[in-house]
Amino acid sequence: MTLLDSLFRYEPVTKLFADTACLQAMLDFEATLARAESAAGAIPSSAASAIAAKCRAELFDTQKLIEDAALGGNLAIPLVQQLRNLVAAQDEDAANFVHWGATSQDVIDSSLALRVRKALQLIQADAATLCNALATLADHHRATPIVGRTLMQHAVPTTLGMKFAGWLDALGRHCDRLRETHERCLVLQFGGAVGTLASLSSHAQTVAKNLSVELQLPLPQIPWHSHRDRLAEIATTLGLLTGTLGKIASDIALHAQTEIAEIHEPAEQGRGASSTMPHKRNPLACAAILSAATRVPGLVSTMLSAMPQQHERGLGGWHAEWETLPQIVCLTAGALHQLAHITPKLELDISRMQQNLEASKGLIFAEAITAALGQKIPRSAARQLIDDAVNHAVKENTHLRKVLEQEKSITQHFSPAQLDHLFDPRNYSGSASRNIDDVIAAHKSRRPAD
Amino acid sequence: MTLLDSLFRYEPVTKLFADTACLQAMLDFEATLARAESAAGAIPSSAASAIAAKCRAELFDTQKLIEDAALGGNLAIPLVQQLRNLVAAQDEDAANFVHWGATSQDVIDSSLALRVRKALQLIQADAATLCNALATLADHHRATPIVGRTLMQHAVPTTLGMKFAGWLDALGRHCDRLRETHERCLVLQFGGAVGTLASLSSHAQTVAKNLSVELQLPLPQIPWHSHRDRLAEIATTLGLLTGTLGKIASDIALHAQTEIAEIHEPAEQGRGASSTMPHKRNPLACAAILSAATRVPGLVSTMLSAMPQQHERGLGGWHAEWETLPQIVCLTAGALHQLAHITPKLELDISRMQQNLEASKGLIFAEAITAALGQKIPRSAARQLIDDAVNHAVKENTHLRKVLEQEKSITQHFSPAQLDHLFDPRNYSGSASRNIDDVIAAHKSRRPAD
Amino acid sequence: MTLLDSLFRYEPVTKLFADTACLQAMLDFEATLARAESAAGAIPSSAASAIAAKCRAELFDTQKLIEDAALGGNLAIPLVQQLRNLVAAQDEDAANFVHWGATSQDVIDSSLALRVRKALQLIQADAATLCNALATLADHHRATPIVGRTLMQHAVPTTLGMKFAGWLDALGRHCDRLRETHERCLVLQFGGAVGTLASLSSHAQTVAKNLSVELQLPLPQIPWHSHRDRLAEIATTLGLLTGTLGKIASDIALHAQTEIAEIHEPAEQGRGASSTMPHKRNPLACAAILSAATRVPGLVSTMLSAMPQQHERGLGGWHAEWETLPQIVCLTAGALHQLAHITPKLELDISRMQQNLEASKGLIFAEAITAALGQKIPRSAARQLIDDAVNHAVKENTHLRKVLEQEKSITQHFSPAQLDHLFDPRNYSGSASRNIDDVIAAHKSRRPAD
Amino acid sequence: MTLLDSLFRYEPVTKLFADTACLQAMLDFEATLARAESAAGAIPSSAASAIAAKCRAELFDTQKLIEDAALGGNLAIPLVQQLRNLVAAQDEDAANFVHWGATSQDVIDSSLALRVRKALQLIQADAATLCNALATLADHHRATPIVGRTLMQHAVPTTLGMKFAGWLDALGRHCDRLRETHERCLVLQFGGAVGTLASLSSHAQTVAKNLSVELQLPLPQIPWHSHRDRLAEIATTLGLLTGTLGKIASDIALHAQTEIAEIHEPAEQGRGASSTMPHKRNPLACAAILSAATRVPGLVSTMLSAMPQQHERGLGGWHAEWETLPQIVCLTAGALHQLAHITPKLELDISRMQQNLEASKGLIFAEAITAALGQKIPRSAARQLIDDAVNHAVKENTHLRKVLEQEKSITQHFSPAQLDHLFDPRNYSGSASRNIDDVIAAHKSRRPAD
Repeated sequence: MTLLDSLFRYEPVTKLFADTACLQAMLDFEATLARAESAAGAIPSSAASAIAAKCRAELFDTQKLIEDAALGGNLAIPLVQQLRNLVAAQDEDAANFVHWGATSQDVIDSSLALRVRKALQLIQADAATLCNALATLADHHRATPIVGRTLMQHAVPTTLGMKFAGWLDALGRHCDRLRETHERCLVLQFGGAVGTLASLSSHAQTVAKNLSVELQLPLPQIPWHSHRDRLAEIATTLGLLTGTLGKIASDIALHAQTEIAEIHEPAEQGRGASSTMPHKRNPLACAAILSAATRVPGLVSTMLSAMPQQHERGLGGWHAEWETLPQIVCLTAGALHQLAHITPKLELDISRMQQNLEASKGLIFAEAITAALGQKIPRSAARQLIDDAVNHAVKENTHLRKVLEQEKSITQHFSPAQLDHLFDPRNYSGSASRNIDDVIAAHKSRRPAD
Repeated sequence: MTLLDSLFRYEPVTKLFADTACLQAMLDFEATLARAESAAGAIPSSAASAIAAKCRAELFDTQKLIEDAALGGNLAIPLVQQLRNLVAAQDEDAANFVHWGATSQDVIDSSLALRVRKALQLIQADAATLCNALATLADHHRATPIVGRTLMQHAVPTTLGMKFAGWLDALGRHCDRLRETHERCLVLQFGGAVGTLASLSSHAQTVAKNLSVELQLPLPQIPWHSHRDRLAEIATTLGLLTGTLGKIASDIALHAQTEIAEIHEPAEQGRGASSTMPHKRNPLACAAILSAATRVPGLVSTMLSAMPQQHERGLGGWHAEWETLPQIVCLTAGALHQLAHITPKLELDISRMQQNLEASKGLIFAEAITAALGQKIPRSAARQLIDDAVNHAVKENTHLRKVLEQEKSITQHFSPAQLDHLFDPRNYSGSASRNIDDVIAAHKSRRPAD
Repeated sequence: MTLLDSLFRYEPVTKLFADTACLQAMLDFEATLARAESAAGAIPSSAASAIAAKCRAELFDTQKLIEDAALGGNLAIPLVQQLRNLVAAQDEDAANFVHWGATSQDVIDSSLALRVRKALQLIQADAATLCNALATLADHHRATPIVGRTLMQHAVPTTLGMKFAGWLDALGRHCDRLRETHERCLVLQFGGAVGTLASLSSHAQTVAKNLSVELQLPLPQIPWHSHRDRLAEIATTLGLLTGTLGKIASDIALHAQTEIAEIHEPAEQGRGASSTMPHKRNPLACAAILSAATRVPGLVSTMLSAMPQQHERGLGGWHAEWETLPQIVCLTAGALHQLAHITPKLELDISRMQQNLEASKGLIFAEAITAALGQKIPRSAARQLIDDAVNHAVKENTHLRKVLEQEKSITQHFSPAQLDHLFDPRNYSGSASRNIDDVIAAHKSRRPAD
Repeated sequence: MTLLDSLFRYEPVTKLFADTACLQAMLDFEATLARAESAAGAIPSSAASAIAAKCRAELFDTQKLIEDAALGGNLAIPLVQQLRNLVAAQDEDAANFVHWGATSQDVIDSSLALRVRKALQLIQADAATLCNALATLADHHRATPIVGRTLMQHAVPTTLGMKFAGWLDALGRHCDRLRETHERCLVLQFGGAVGTLASLSSHAQTVAKNLSVELQLPLPQIPWHSHRDRLAEIATTLGLLTGTLGKIASDIALHAQTEIAEIHEPAEQGRGASSTMPHKRNPLACAAILSAATRVPGLVSTMLSAMPQQHERGLGGWHAEWETLPQIVCLTAGALHQLAHITPKLELDISRMQQNLEASKGLIFAEAITAALGQKIPRSAARQLIDDAVNHAVKENTHLRKVLEQEKSITQHFSPAQLDHLFDPRNYSGSASRNIDDVIAAHKSRRPAD
C-alpha cells in the first residue's frame, strides 16, 4: 500500500521499512559479518573485502529476489545466493565465505533490529518534543476553566491545564517505557542453524563479539531465534503509546465538535478541506491517530499470538512478524508525529470554554455549592436542599442560580457576592495547580531519551 | 512491503490492491458516474465524454496524490482535483461536472467493492479447485489406515480419507459463506455528503440506478457510509476460511515432522531448500498459511473494532479499514492458493502411516479389543482386563499383543487369527466410509460458486 | 465474575451459561444418548432408564467436579465418573453403559450447541423487537431535520428518520446472518474417540440419528472435533452484530452530549444517577453496549486464533473456546437487550435538533445554495461565489444568510422567500424519504426469525 | 464461569478476583479513606470509626448490589449506598461522611490495584521458582545431545541444556518486566469527580497522602481516571509472559508426541487420563498453558482498544476493563503455576533423544561434516561433495555414514575414528555450554522480585 496509507505516514520512519532500506540493512549485516570473521581469523581478509564490496542494494535483482524468496521461504536465501554470485564473479574463493556460519534468521532479525533502532530514536525524539509542548501548555493554562466531562456528560469544572498535564503525565511514562524497551530489546541475533554457532567452532565467540561491536547491537546471553519476547515487547510498548495518542486525539476531536468548538486542529493551507463542503475543517490528524489506535491493538495481538514458536525456529509464527512489526512501528510513528506537529499550534477557544461551562445552566456548580453549604448546615440537609434545587431548575429549565437566589435557606448563608464566587469555576479547581506542578517537575527530571 | 511479503502473495489478487489498480478503480467510478449522470440528464453528455477520456491512471501524478491525500484526508480529494484539472485543460465547462453529487467515500468505497469482487471470484475459484482435489483424495484413501491423534497423542486408528473428508467438509461450508457474503456485501456506495444525494435533487434515483447497472454493483436500500457490517463480514468470512486453512496446514506440518513423516509438501525445484542444510525440505506452504492464520484474526478484530463509526461518516474507523481489509483479502487468497497448489501433489507415505500405527506397541488397539471382549464377558470386567494388560505392556515396554497372547482370559475368547483381526486398523474404521460418502455427496450437490 | 458484569447482563442468556445449566445440559446429553442407544439396541433399555434417572444436576458434587476436571483435563471426565458411580449404586451393570461410545468432546460440544441455540433464539427475538421499534421511528421521523455530521463536524442536513433507517438497514442484515448461522452451525457432535464411532460398530448410525432427533440438533455429514468453523462463525456473526450495536450506542452518546442534547436515553428511576453529581444522567445503556463493542472483537480474534486445532482433537485451541464463546454470546445478548429496551423510549429533542442546525450560522446550507445557484449561473462561478461568502461569514462570525442578502449576484437570482426556502433543511433531504421506504419495505419482507 | 475454567485456575489468584474479595477490597478502600480523612481533620474521627466498623463484606446484600449496579452504572454506587445505610443505622451523622470527596472510579480502580498487587506478587514468586528449576536443568543437561529442529524439521544437533537456557533467558526478562510494571503501574487512584479533589478543598493533599500510605499504594503525580496506560501495561507485561509460557508448552507438547517421546509431563495419579483410552497420558498442563496463550492476546488487544477514554472518564472503555484485566491476570497466573509445577518433574527420555538423532540416518550431521571437510579441501568442493552424498543417501534410503565410507575423497581425509567423532552430536554443540553459563550467571545476578 502506498497511496492509501499516505495519511498515516511519517516518511523518515516508513522509508526505514521500504524495500531498499530492508535490502541494504541485510547487506550491511553480511558485510559486517565478513569483516568480523576476517578480524577473528575465521575467513581470509581478502574474502571480507570482496564480499563487502558487493553489499550494495543497487547491485541486486529485486524482482528475482521476490520470486526466489517465495521458493526459498525467506528473503535471506536468494539474497545470499545473489551475493555469492556477485562475489564469485570477482573472486570465486571469497564467494565461499559469504554468510559464513550464519543462518537466514540471523540476518533477517539483526537487520530488523538495526532499522527498528533508528525508528525508536525518531519516535523518542518526537515524544520528547510533544512532552515539551504539553509542559508549556499545562503550565500556561493551569487555571483556565473548562468543563470536566465524565461518561460524555458535563460533570464539574476542571482546568485546561489539568487536561494537558494528564496527557503529559501519561506520555512521560511512555518515554520511560521506550527507553527500557530500547535498552532491553534491540540486540544482535547470531546463532547459526540452531543457535550454537557450531559451524564456526572456536571462532564463534570472537566473531559474535566483533559483529556486535561493529553493528552496535549488544550481544545477548544466548541467541533468541524462537524466543520473540523482545520483538513482542517493542510491539506492546508502541501499542501502549498509541493507546494514549488515541485518547488525546479522541479528546481533541470531541472538543472540536461544531457545538462544542473549544479546541481545533491548527488551520493550515489545504489541510482538512472537504471536497464538497467549503466550510468544513476536518480534524485530520485526529483521524490518522484514531485510525492508528484502532489498528495497532489487533497487530499487537498478532505479535503475541505469534510468540509460541516451535523448537529452534518457528513455522508461521516467525513469518507472521515480518510485516506486522514494521506496520506497528510505522503507525505509531505516524500518529505520534501528527500529534507532535499539531499540539503546539492547537487553536484554543477560551471564551467558548467559558460559554460551555454555562451550558448546563449552573448545574455544573451543584457539587461546589453542596460542599460549601455543607460547611454551614448538616451535610445531609445540604445535599437534600441542593438536590431539590437542581431538580427544580431542570424541571423549569431555568438557571440553578436563579432557583437558589429565591431560596431563603440559601440566601441566609450566602450573599450575592458569595454566590458569584461559588458559580465561578476558577474557585473550584482543587488540586489542579499542584498536580500540574508535580507533573511538570517529573517531566523535567526525566532523563532525556538516549 | 514488497520484498518481505513474497511468501504470502497470490499475484492476481495482490495486484488488485496495488497503487495502479486502486487508482484506476477510482477513476472507473468517476467515468461511470459521469456517464450515468449524462444518461439521466443531470450533466451534459459532452461533459461525460470529456471526463471519461481523462479517467486513465497513467495521466495522474502519483507522488502529488500521496502528498495531497495527507493534506486532504483521503485519496479521493486530490484525485478529483487532478481529474478536474486534466478535464479543464480540454473543456473548462466539463470540469465542473467531475465527481458531480458524489462524496469522497462514494468513490473510495465503491472502487473497493469493485476490486474485492474480483478477489472473491479468484478466491472462490481456488476454493472450488481445492475441494475437488480433496474429494478425490478422500474417496481414494477412504480405507487407508492412519493413527488418529487427540491432544497430540495417539488415540485410536482412523483413516486418511476421514482426514481429507473433514477438511473438505469445512471447506464446503466456507464455499457457502463466500457465496452468501459475495451476494450480500458487495454493493454500490453512492450517497453524497451525508447519504441523501440531496445535491442531485430529482436526478438522484436515476443516476444511482444507472451507476449500479454499469458497475454491476447492486443498489442498496440506503447508503451505508457509517454502517460497515458488509465490509466487516467480508473480513470475518475470510477470517473463518483462513482458520480452516491454518488447521489443515498445521496438520500437514505435524504429519511432516521428521519422526512422523507421513505427509510431505510436494518436492519442487528449489522449493523449501535450506541455506545451510542440504537435507532439509521445509514445509513452506504451511509456513505461509500458518502465518496468515496467525495474522488474520488480529486484522479481523480491527475491522470489528472499527465498526462503531460516528454519525454519517466515521473519524478514524473508516480510515482504519483502508489497509486492513486489503491485507485480509491478500493473506487469505495467498494462503488458499498455496494450499490449492500443494494439495493435489501431497506426498503420502502410506507405509510410514502403517509403521506409526505400531509406534505405541499395540496400545492404539486397546479400545477395539476392549469393545470386542465386552461382547463376550461383562463390559466392566473386559475394561479391567484390558486396562491391566495395557499397564503391563507399558511397564514391560512390550507389545500389547504379546501380553494378551499370554493371557488365558483372552486366548479362550480369541484365536490368533481373531487377534490378528483385532490388531488390524482396517477393521476399526467405524463410520469412516459412510461419513466420507456423505461429505462427498454434499460437495457434489453444492452449487458452483457464481 | 458476578458483581462486576451486572451492567452487561441479560439474565435469560447469562443463566444458560451458569454452572447449573452447563452441568444439566451435559447430563441431558448423557441421558438422551442412553435412550438413543437403547432404542438402537446398543444397550439394554433398563440401563438407559437407570442412567437417565441420575442425570439431574443437583445429584452431583460440584466442588469435586471442579477439582477432578483440573486433573482430567475437561469437565466431562469427572462428570461421567460421578454419573457412573451414581448409576452403579442402583444398577451396577447399567453403569457400564454410561457415556457408551462417546468421547468427552461429544458431550461438551453438543451441550454447548444446545445452550447456544436457546441463546440465539433470545437474541433473534430481541433483534426483531428492536427492528420493529426502529421501523416505527424511521417512518415517523422521515422528515424531521437534523444535522448530518461527517468526521465529527457538521456537514449538511439530513433527517432523523434517515439515521433510524440506517440503523434498521444494518440490523436487518444481522437478522439474516443470525438465521443463516443458526441453521448452519448448531449441529450434533458425536464421533467417539477420533470421529469414527468405531466402538459402536454397526449401531453407530442409528444411535447418531436417534440422538440427533431427540436433541433436535441436526446430524452433520461428519463429526467436527477439530473443525471449529461453526462455533467460530457464531462468534463472528455476533461480533458483526455487536459492531453495529456499538455504532448505534456511539451515535446516541454523541447526540446526548450536554452541548448537543438531541437524543437521550429514557429517564428511569435510579438509572444512570451519579454518586456525587445530582444533575447528571449518564448514558448507561450506551456504556454497556460500547463496552461490549470494545470487548467482543478481541474475543472473536481468540475464536479465530483457536481454529487451527491439531489432528482429531486440539491441544489448547479447543480449551480456549470454553469460556470465550459464552462470553461473546452473553456480551452480545446483553448489549442487544439494552438497546432493544431503550430504543422505543428514546427521548428525542426535536427543537434542539433544529437549534443545532443553526449552530454553524447557515454554513450547513452552503452546499444547497451552491447547487441552486449552479442552476442559474455557471457552476464554477456559483461555487466561487458561495465559497467567498462562506469565508466572509466565517471571518466576520456572521450568519451566511446575512452575507448573501448583501450580495447582488445572489439577490438578483433569489427573492427573500426563495432564500428562506434554501435555508430550510426540510427542502434539502434528497432521497431520504425514498430510502426510508425501501428500508422499511425490506424489513417487512424479511421472513421472521425461526 | 466456574466449572469450565477449572483447568486454568490457580486458586490463590482467582480468589482475589472473586466476588467476596472484590467487595472487601472496595470496602477496605472506603474504611481507609474515612480514617485518612479523619487524620487530616476533614471528617470527625467518630465518623471514621463508625464507617470502618461497617466495611465488612458479609454485611452487604450481594443480590441487591448486582441489581442496583445495573441501574447505577457501576458497583461503587450501590455499595456506597448500602454502606451509608448500614452506617446510618448506627450513626446518622457519620453516614454523611461515607465516600467523602471520592468518586466511584477512585474506589473501583484503587481496589483493583490492591488485588492486582497481590496477584503480581504470587506471579513473581512462581516465576522465580520456575527460573530456579530451569537453571538447574540447563546446567545439568548442558551437554545432553538432542535434535535441533527448525521449521518443524530436523536441522542440526543442539543440547537439551540449550533449550532450557533459552526458556530461562526469556523468563529472566519477564522477571525484569514484572518488576518494572509492578513499580510503575500499581498506584493510588484518588481524584474525586474529575480529578481535582475540589470538594475536599484544603484537605485534599493530606487526605491523599494518608490514603496512599495506609493502602501502600504510591501517590501518583495526578489522578489517572481516563489515562489507562498503567493498567494496559499490566496486561501487556502479562501478555508477553504468557507468550513465552505458550512457547515452552508448545515445545513440551511437540517433544511429547508419541513418535518423538523425548519429554513428558510428570505422571501423577489421575492426571491426564483419557475417559476411553487407558494408554493415553495427555499433556494437560500444556493444554491449559496453550489455551491461555491463545486467549490472552485477544484480551490484551481489548485493553489497548479500550485506552482512548473520553475526557475525564470514559464511556465504555473503562467498563471494558472490568472483567478483561482480571481474566488476563488469572489466565497468566494459572498458566505460569502449571508450568512451575511440572517443570522440575518433567520426564526426560535421554535415550530417546539419542535415538531420534539417528532418525534422519545421519543427515543431521551433514553440516558438521561439511565444515570439517572444508578445513581440508576448498569449501565449495566440500559442500558439493557432501551435497552429493546426502542426495545419494536420501535416494537409496541409506545412512549417510555408509555413503561416506565408500567415498574415497572422504576416507582419504577421515579415519573411521574421525568419522565416529563427526557423527557424534556431542562434538557439535558449539557455544552451547558458554551460552548456558552466561544465562545462568544473568539469572543469578538478577535481583530477586520484591
